[in-house]
Amino acid sequence: MLKLSVLALTVSMSVAAFAAPQKNEPIQPIEPAVVTDAAKVELGKQLFFDPRLSKSGFISCNSCHNLSMGGSDNLPSSIGHNWQEGPINSPTVLNSSLNLAQFWDGRAADLQEQAGGPIANPMEMGFTHDLAVGVLASIPQYVQSFQDVYNTDTITINEVTDAIAEFEKTLVTPNAPFDQWLQGNDDAISADAKAGYKLFKEVGCTACHNGPAVGGNSFQKMGLFEEYVTDNPAEGVAGLTGDDLDRFKFKVPTLRNVELTYPYFHDGAYWNLEEAVDVMARLQLGRKLDEEQISQMTAFLKSLTGEQPSFAVPMLPPSTAATPRPVPFEKLAE
Amino acid sequence: MLKLSVLALTVSMSVAAFAAPQKNEPIQPIEPAVVTDAAKVELGKQLFFDPRLSKSGFISCNSCHNLSMGGSDNLPSSIGHNWQEGPINSPTVLNSSLNLAQFWDGRAADLQEQAGGPIANPMEMGFTHDLAVGVLASIPQYVQSFQDVYNTDTITINEVTDAIAEFEKTLVTPNAPFDQWLQGNDDAISADAKAGYKLFKEVGCTACHNGPAVGGNSFQKMGLFEEYVTDNPAEGVAGLTGDDLDRFKFKVPTLRNVELTYPYFHDGAYWNLEEAVDVMARLQLGRKLDEEQISQMTAFLKSLTGEQPSFAVPMLPPSTAATPRPVPFEKLAE
Repeated sequence: MLKLSVLALTVSMSVAAFAAPQKNEPIQPIEPAVVTDAAKVELGKQLFFDPRLSKSGFISCNSCHNLSMGGSDNLPSSIGHNWQEGPINSPTVLNSSLNLAQFWDGRAADLQEQAGGPIANPMEMGFTHDLAVGVLASIPQYVQSFQDVYNTDTITINEVTDAIAEFEKTLVTPNAPFDQWLQGNDDAISADAKAGYKLFKEVGCTACHNGPAVGGNSFQKMGLFEEYVTDNPAEGVAGLTGDDLDRFKFKVPTLRNVELTYPYFHDGAYWNLEEAVDVMARLQLGRKLDEEQISQMTAFLKSLTGEQPSFAVPMLPPSTAATPRPVPFEKLAE
Repeated sequence: MLKLSVLALTVSMSVAAFAAPQKNEPIQPIEPAVVTDAAKVELGKQLFFDPRLSKSGFISCNSCHNLSMGGSDNLPSSIGHNWQEGPINSPTVLNSSLNLAQFWDGRAADLQEQAGGPIANPMEMGFTHDLAVGVLASIPQYVQSFQDVYNTDTITINEVTDAIAEFEKTLVTPNAPFDQWLQGNDDAISADAKAGYKLFKEVGCTACHNGPAVGGNSFQKMGLFEEYVTDNPAEGVAGLTGDDLDRFKFKVPTLRNVELTYPYFHDGAYWNLEEAVDVMARLQLGRKLDEEQISQMTAFLKSLTGEQPSFAVPMLPPSTAATPRPVPFEKLAE
């Protein structure tokens, strides 16, 4: 683990060398999004907000990665098709392009691969890739947009998830007070936040929570010094590898906008940032922080709330007579 | 009924006298929204998008009156708390300030009265007014906004619904091609749309669908010349009055943006505008339109799609340690 985190530090420091002049710290500022294909981003934005990618016609990407609420749903686990209870806390989509992989267990290599998951997951959007593509192909404005962006008459799930991923890459949150401080504005954060950041480094949080996303760049075991007790059945990476050593190994979540992305941890069991700080210090670092320390560290964490993506609510092109109808309710008999 | 529609015509024509110079027609242009209290509108917008006004923390006003989809959910009936099936088609919120009353049966006098309904309806948002107010009162930014807008330290449901209604009043859709035509731009709509409008008046649609909202200003019986066959149990105004004569009497829906607000009628049984036109002509007017007439009338109806409200996705203030937690899933035993 030490090796991993040293590596992460090295990688993130070399990234910092290319950024604007700033303090030499284990955390680097979030860079603003650079949009190179505005039409693709716009298409991806429509798809992100379009509930017709779900069987019910009710659930969109934005339902569980709500951009009004820090890119999350602020629920312990998500509500899926037919009000099914999701197995794990919905991670924020904000700054998710900075993650080394997607999902808590990293089972998707990138945002494009991730985007296909919920659409076809019976517990989430409950649809299939073919049916989702069929809906889009029945809507002339979408067909035109895919033609314009991908120069193709035939929409496939690859273009759908590529466009969604391209939109998601714009969902970064630069210019947090902490970033302003990193870039030399000493008044950008409070004395408490500064003390909290000092402590954050001293006790070792930066071993895992480093880089521009303050996390998202390694997998670590949840519960090193004490066991993490939960009734959530998620196994983490072990669910993929079958290796007992990978049990409870999860992708370290980003701490960017952590003020907005409650409740915390893979099971969403902790609603208050102060409690989450206390648990992390004890379980991961074997440290019992006192009330003042927790308060300071929380002040630092709140300084990581950046500028939220701002854009107009997208307008979705209407369905046509050819559009397959949503199936919100299963009729047992007709 | 004749009396009612003549009255409606008189009322709407006197309104027209105050508007910009235009053709003397039974339909008048939609006037742009005039915002007199921007802070109140902004607060109402946040509340409209805030799922914390529901028990689950998942359903907001925008869930069923989706402003990306013509202010509706494009479902026959809505999905409510715990995936319950709503009893009736969710009417568009667009231009709803022009309705003579709210809900299909008009049981709410105005938008403010309407806004309180779904929050406390066990089939919809499943919450109570007290609990919703309690959530808002636990969030300092909301407390400050209510203080700024209403000069009060104590939030009640009255301020909540007043702010939502004030936002909803801005959700008008001016400058539709048909409005441009009304205002003298002869090229704004197609020859088909013009023929469709002529037919719309000739066969008598304007008896009920008139005024700026092209409807919304009277209650009429669904199924005059033929019975409307449906398995939807809604009784219309009779559900309020107990009077058999009021059975199937519903508020005439606005035809503004009707292209976007499928499926149609109180039971959402018809997905295609052409079918809806055919049904209406037969059942309400005793007229069987031919294919060309239906196509022309549909072209006219599509010219009623106006400029959709455009604004940035609102950012919601985060919950605090004092905020009551949402209850998305009922646990039978703890």
